[in-house]
Amino acid sequence: MDAWLPSWNEGTAKSTIVGFVDRVCATGGSDFVPPAERIAVFDNDGTLWCEYPMQVQVFFALAEVHRLVTQNPGLLAKPAFKAMVDGDLKALATLPKKEVFEPVFATHAGMTVDEFRTKARAWLHAARHPGVGQLFTQGAFTPMRELLDYLGAHQFRTYIVTGGGVEFVRAFAESLYGIPPEQVIGSSTRMQAEVQGKDIVLRKRAELGSFDDREEKVVNIALHIGRRPIFAFGNSDGDLAMLRYTLGGPGPRQAWYLHHDDSEREFAYDREFKLSPFAEGLDHANEYGIGVVSMKHDWQRVFDDHADAIPETA
Amino acid sequence: MDAWLPSWNEGTAKSTIVGFVDRVCATGGSDFVPPAERIAVFDNDGTLWCEYPMQVQVFFALAEVHRLVTQNPGLLAKPAFKAMVDGDLKALATLPKKEVFEPVFATHAGMTVDEFRTKARAWLHAARHPGVGQLFTQGAFTPMRELLDYLGAHQFRTYIVTGGGVEFVRAFAESLYGIPPEQVIGSSTRMQAEVQGKDIVLRKRAELGSFDDREEKVVNIALHIGRRPIFAFGNSDGDLAMLRYTLGGPGPRQAWYLHHDDSEREFAYDREFKLSPFAEGLDHANEYGIGVVSMKHDWQRVFDDHADAIPETA
Repeated sequence: MDAWLPSWNEGTAKSTIVGFVDRVCATGGSDFVPPAERIAVFDNDGTLWCEYPMQVQVFFALAEVHRLVTQNPGLLAKPAFKAMVDGDLKALATLPKKEVFEPVFATHAGMTVDEFRTKARAWLHAARHPGVGQLFTQGAFTPMRELLDYLGAHQFRTYIVTGGGVEFVRAFAESLYGIPPEQVIGSSTRMQAEVQGKDIVLRKRAELGSFDDREEKVVNIALHIGRRPIFAFGNSDGDLAMLRYTLGGPGPRQAWYLHHDDSEREFAYDREFKLSPFAEGLDHANEYGIGVVSMKHDWQRVFDDHADAIPETA
Repeated sequence: MDAWLPSWNEGTAKSTIVGFVDRVCATGGSDFVPPAERIAVFDNDGTLWCEYPMQVQVFFALAEVHRLVTQNPGLLAKPAFKAMVDGDLKALATLPKKEVFEPVFATHAGMTVDEFRTKARAWLHAARHPGVGQLFTQGAFTPMRELLDYLGAHQFRTYIVTGGGVEFVRAFAESLYGIPPEQVIGSSTRMQAEVQGKDIVLRKRAELGSFDDREEKVVNIALHIGRRPIFAFGNSDGDLAMLRYTLGGPGPRQAWYLHHDDSEREFAYDREFKLSPFAEGLDHANEYGIGVVSMKHDWQRVFDDHADAIPETA
């Protein structure tokens, strides 16, 4: 049937998505939505790429943490810093996301935004997942990249709304997903603008600006986009508010959860994953009108084994 | 010569802008800039529309302030609240912008974002400048609307970066300037997302989130856009950091100040306007490479006398 979404199995999930896109694009139809209002929002970790057993950005921070703790040994009193310095991934995985992400964000304080992006890109270009042995960027889900392309081709504007750091995700979002920097919304540390000779440069501070998770995702969508999305995709309780906000408006709208139920091709986890549990969302998806995509049943393949590394420079 | 910018007099300002746009759009030329990088940022108050003797949003807040002070008489201890309640525009005009804008933003705390936007739009649809007697939206500068259209037609993405409230400016930016909500960056109060039946609604809180002025404009450009603009336009010291940041990158770039030097057709003011002075920028424009547009000499006309009111609903 449809040439789009080739890595999706024929089934309810695919046909429901395709039917929705057809309806909102049908000029003159009762469900037509003008292109300007075709806003789609996607979580990143666990939705667009693999987040298990730990989010990619945590691996990125591990190397830097040693330097930070040498400068300020008092940080070891914080369980997340201690676990990171010890390389104790098991201990890290028992902590709530915010406790782990705060030191991750703090790790690059003092760097300019340009320096940070260069560093992140160089790391992403070469770093490999310690367990799986592949480049982290090869952990992007092929069916989700297809979905982003499909929506983009139908004049949707696709945004990433991530708990990850906005500058980290911008370092790869354009080459990996085709999503430009202005369509990435994420967590952020405060920045300061400094005069440096004839230029003004931006420097990252240690102080958290926004932790873009749960209700804060809705707040940031309102602040950055100023329109309510009509399509949303997530994979954890951290996305539930965003999915419900998407569904709350008038007219046609859809919201989806990806369920990681594929221990052979990726991983099977949900409510027990302390770093980013999927429990309330899983229990209430039906009641809230949120569709659930099964990785195991709805996807013909998960990864693109021939994926290139992202380029080292922009 | 050029059919664009008909309300601009032929002269250095117009020819410099047109020459720049021609160069960045010339495929294969050494100054070519891909459309995705053609980011242009504009201040709003005093740059796109009239801000004298007081920014439009202050007038919008005046009616609400009485209600607020009745509920909480302690607010009268703050000079800006006192002056607003007394309707003492002269006293208000002697205060710094942040002191005046904070109560303006606080005025609508407790409203949902949807309620606020409806209210702002209804007010803007009908409210008239007490001195001039025209609709506030008729205070938009025709040459600047032409410039926005001209850049948009050449695949620039035009953003407003305003000290005004982001939700207030979004209420009219699309109909008045053709700038969609996701391209408006502004000051903001914190919001909270609340479950309300099957929906999630956003409510404005009294606490200031970002006061989008001076260096904070640069920080917000980085946070929201993630690219350095190549063209910028402002009219006060509050825009200086944004203009210098724009000029600081590599490749072709331009930054402009509008100088209000036209007491006949609009107003003549700069360093003495306490609410938003133009002093450091005026003194150093040349040194920093910022062009200065004279309203009196560079504009053939200032306002569109036949301008329609903005529609009351979106």
